[in-house]
Amino acid sequence: MPDAPREPLNHWVLTFVCADRPGIVHAISGAIVSARGNITESQQFSSADTGRFFMRLQVESPGDRAEFEAVLVPIAEEYEMTWRLDDVGRPLRTLVLASTAAHCVNDLLFRQRAGQLSVEIPLVLSNHGTLRDIAAFYGVPFESRPVTDAASKAAFERRILEVVDEFDIELVVLARYMQILSPELCERLAGRAINIHHSFLPGFKGANPYRQAHARGVKLIGATAHFVTSDLDEGPIIEQNVVRVDHSRSASELVAIGQDEESRTLTQAVKWFAEDRVLLDGARTIIFK
Amino acid sequence: MPDAPREPLNHWVLTFVCADRPGIVHAISGAIVSARGNITESQQFSSADTGRFFMRLQVESPGDRAEFEAVLVPIAEEYEMTWRLDDVGRPLRTLVLASTAAHCVNDLLFRQRAGQLSVEIPLVLSNHGTLRDIAAFYGVPFESRPVTDAASKAAFERRILEVVDEFDIELVVLARYMQILSPELCERLAGRAINIHHSFLPGFKGANPYRQAHARGVKLIGATAHFVTSDLDEGPIIEQNVVRVDHSRSASELVAIGQDEESRTLTQAVKWFAEDRVLLDGARTIIFK
Amino acid sequence: MPDAPREPLNHWVLTFVCADRPGIVHAISGAIVSARGNITESQQFSSADTGRFFMRLQVESPGDRAEFEAVLVPIAEEYEMTWRLDDVGRPLRTLVLASTAAHCVNDLLFRQRAGQLSVEIPLVLSNHGTLRDIAAFYGVPFESRPVTDAASKAAFERRILEVVDEFDIELVVLARYMQILSPELCERLAGRAINIHHSFLPGFKGANPYRQAHARGVKLIGATAHFVTSDLDEGPIIEQNVVRVDHSRSASELVAIGQDEESRTLTQAVKWFAEDRVLLDGARTIIFK
Amino acid sequence: MPDAPREPLNHWVLTFVCADRPGIVHAISGAIVSARGNITESQQFSSADTGRFFMRLQVESPGDRAEFEAVLVPIAEEYEMTWRLDDVGRPLRTLVLASTAAHCVNDLLFRQRAGQLSVEIPLVLSNHGTLRDIAAFYGVPFESRPVTDAASKAAFERRILEVVDEFDIELVVLARYMQILSPELCERLAGRAINIHHSFLPGFKGANPYRQAHARGVKLIGATAHFVTSDLDEGPIIEQNVVRVDHSRSASELVAIGQDEESRTLTQAVKWFAEDRVLLDGARTIIFK
Repeated sequence: MPDAPREPLNHWVLTFVCADRPGIVHAISGAIVSARGNITESQQFSSADTGRFFMRLQVESPGDRAEFEAVLVPIAEEYEMTWRLDDVGRPLRTLVLASTAAHCVNDLLFRQRAGQLSVEIPLVLSNHGTLRDIAAFYGVPFESRPVTDAASKAAFERRILEVVDEFDIELVVLARYMQILSPELCERLAGRAINIHHSFLPGFKGANPYRQAHARGVKLIGATAHFVTSDLDEGPIIEQNVVRVDHSRSASELVAIGQDEESRTLTQAVKWFAEDRVLLDGARTIIFK
Repeated sequence: MPDAPREPLNHWVLTFVCADRPGIVHAISGAIVSARGNITESQQFSSADTGRFFMRLQVESPGDRAEFEAVLVPIAEEYEMTWRLDDVGRPLRTLVLASTAAHCVNDLLFRQRAGQLSVEIPLVLSNHGTLRDIAAFYGVPFESRPVTDAASKAAFERRILEVVDEFDIELVVLARYMQILSPELCERLAGRAINIHHSFLPGFKGANPYRQAHARGVKLIGATAHFVTSDLDEGPIIEQNVVRVDHSRSASELVAIGQDEESRTLTQAVKWFAEDRVLLDGARTIIFK
Repeated sequence: MPDAPREPLNHWVLTFVCADRPGIVHAISGAIVSARGNITESQQFSSADTGRFFMRLQVESPGDRAEFEAVLVPIAEEYEMTWRLDDVGRPLRTLVLASTAAHCVNDLLFRQRAGQLSVEIPLVLSNHGTLRDIAAFYGVPFESRPVTDAASKAAFERRILEVVDEFDIELVVLARYMQILSPELCERLAGRAINIHHSFLPGFKGANPYRQAHARGVKLIGATAHFVTSDLDEGPIIEQNVVRVDHSRSASELVAIGQDEESRTLTQAVKWFAEDRVLLDGARTIIFK
Repeated sequence: MPDAPREPLNHWVLTFVCADRPGIVHAISGAIVSARGNITESQQFSSADTGRFFMRLQVESPGDRAEFEAVLVPIAEEYEMTWRLDDVGRPLRTLVLASTAAHCVNDLLFRQRAGQLSVEIPLVLSNHGTLRDIAAFYGVPFESRPVTDAASKAAFERRILEVVDEFDIELVVLARYMQILSPELCERLAGRAINIHHSFLPGFKGANPYRQAHARGVKLIGATAHFVTSDLDEGPIIEQNVVRVDHSRSASELVAIGQDEESRTLTQAVKWFAEDRVLLDGARTIIFK
């Protein structure tokens, strides 16, 4: 590759899903070679449950998108792939929904600013004004609209969709947003909305899981980041963490302890999603870490 | 204490529970001083849920049991304590129930022989003959009786109670014993029978939790050691552990991975129980590690 | 205790260290009873290494400090105790030293404001101006003074001591402060200065531990919070954490991964110290969690 | 693939290392297609440190070894690969060296018999007779030879090499074998001998690491499985684990706690090696989990 240093290299991330059959890797790697690409990262998975094949590749190449797409499209058609090609590290356009709890929003904004999380956040939208200062500190626009009844809730959801359209939002993050989304909105955001549940799922669902955890005397508490579906707390799981607790902890102490797990679990899920590492296989996720 | 080196020291573990009120620690520590004891380990907990006070003490003293009881009994009566005084390190008389799975039984027997688990096991009682060789290797008596219908199941349970009486059994361990105990037997063994559940409770209950875990795509699987109650899988939790898994694991691989958590979780629970570190506070356990 | 509801209760934390001998617990608990106190939390440890006895008690009582001290002082003298009596939850006066890295300072300030960390911070003192905005956001005074040579370094250290005196500082936290303190200053701050080392000690010491960790191919990286002593990186360890990494991580990725461990490890150590849970036993720490 | 169901499928694991350059994946995947293979698992890594490319593939194919080698050899020559083709699940011929400690040997033999560890063990060779019964229980030949001086040590090492030759040993496991191997033997076994070090490396090296850990008051203790090299305790690290401890643990308790980490860390390293998941990149290992 004597010419490589002369041309600037582009860095692509390619993900695709198709029915599993022999020859896929050979076909794709041939296309990459012919677009002057070098594979720098590669992960694949064949799902015995659904018979589908999942792959994520990172490729460096002097070629531009047009050159790449020219070789990929015929293969994608032949193998009936669902695919996505993106620049490595392009910040994902992300809408953050919040209520009053600060820990998840603070962690997302701090890491975004520290360069550890490849997202851009055009808006934090909340049903309370509590987090206005934190958003301002990080220079992120903030908007609050009260949700007090069915009408204001519907208006809030319409506003979500407006923002999604206006900013071409790719991911909606429910950062301890304490409202249940309507089935219609869940449907509209399917596969691009992530929620943090303040319990190790399956487990204590619904309200006050920490109180339930205390009553049951569990020795570990946790948090679960999952895709939003209309089936509450049953969406595909992206990440889970737990932390050890003992009998001396009150229910309110469990809340404080659990918040650390919530924020790190949600941020991790957003990070993987922003790096195209999360693919859906029916009710399960494939995570190419 | 100029005389201390001349007399051999006894080592006692004292646990008690009573209604919480001021002065308990002073009263108990005074009794210990008057029985020439020195406190070497002490833990206590006041339960805000039940208003009860729990304490565990280890004491070294040249005094014998009679000397100790003479000072303890009046205080125990005054404070209406439930209490227990035992020699530190006395092996607990333990009956192990098993079926065909070897991992939990092997771990218990290996650690008992290695001196890490202070139990003596007069019998492994199983509804299958599979583990006869393992028991023989560790020099532990083994007995198998088929359970195929209601009559043989009742006979098996009668045999359990016979063994409990004959050997004055203090703890019954269900080491992946795959039969549900009758409510009557659960009642008889209340507070002295420990089961290992092959899931992180609350969570996937009943049969095949690993298959459920796989279908749900969880990122952590676990095990729970709990007291046996007639309310299946709902007894007070003693210990829980989890391990990280990913999408590439089949349900059968989850089984193998989970078995390690099962055996170490069960052994840990038995070890704490044998050391008088597990006390009951309603539906919760107090663990004085 | 019929009078208890009528008087407001004070909450005390009492820690003490003395030579181990029988009767200490009885003497102390007697003093507490006579000062109308109820023990709500109690931990003790007898060090086989040094023959010293350590205890931490939380007590609620309608009595004031004078009443408490009146009964404690005679016992403290009799047993030659080093002791400390404080209000539970009183914020510890804490000076934060920083350089350019934000993660530890941000975590300390965020948790202090969120009410999870019982400290008050009259000043963040830095040899760089980088963190001025973060301090301002959390409403904490900030001062920067360049350290470029021996003279400016000595001036910086004099300023540290001025601040310690002016605000009666109880704890100095080196939150990734990248200067080595002089032996004289270490001596002056002995037992009340905590540093975060960006490695799992003992291990990679000195500069660039993450580069060393990468070169060695370690599978876990970590962080260590320890007391500052003139013997660099050898002060008594307060807390350590590790996180799993694999071969695919570059040295610079290890830095980013390790920063999370650094900030949570340092914050944990500060939290325990502020709650009087950290006692020194020679070169080791006793942590009453 | 209409014929696939008619022929039995072979399962191959292919690993190779070569200089990194574009086209490798395409060339290999083309060879696999032409040998009628389907890739079921694939992992790769490009080392920025050494410029080398590492790959591990699992392939199912009706073709036999000859058919596979016919297509692989030309590519291996073109790219100057070091490569290895093996049947998935073939038990690795493994020699276990031991002294008196039982925990690592017991774990290896138990898991081998439970079908969790794909090794066959023609001999446990020890400088003590202590573990004869455990080996006998698992039906593994056992041989002990005292090592008391230079001559008996040299004889022991000669016996190791005899056994390696006689049984065509692929892996030598030092399961708490308490003798230092001579540089010559280390050289002979380079890349195929794994040791368990009873500490988290880098850290406490040499004798009595648990005593050092106690003296230093560390909050986590661990174990490290690494390749044997003549530079003691400095061989490439394969796996590490840690467990949390506190001030109350004596040095001898740390030993008991650490043994669990030792046995699970060593068994994990052996399992990965037996599955061709461990490759060497200079002083570091690549682990394709």
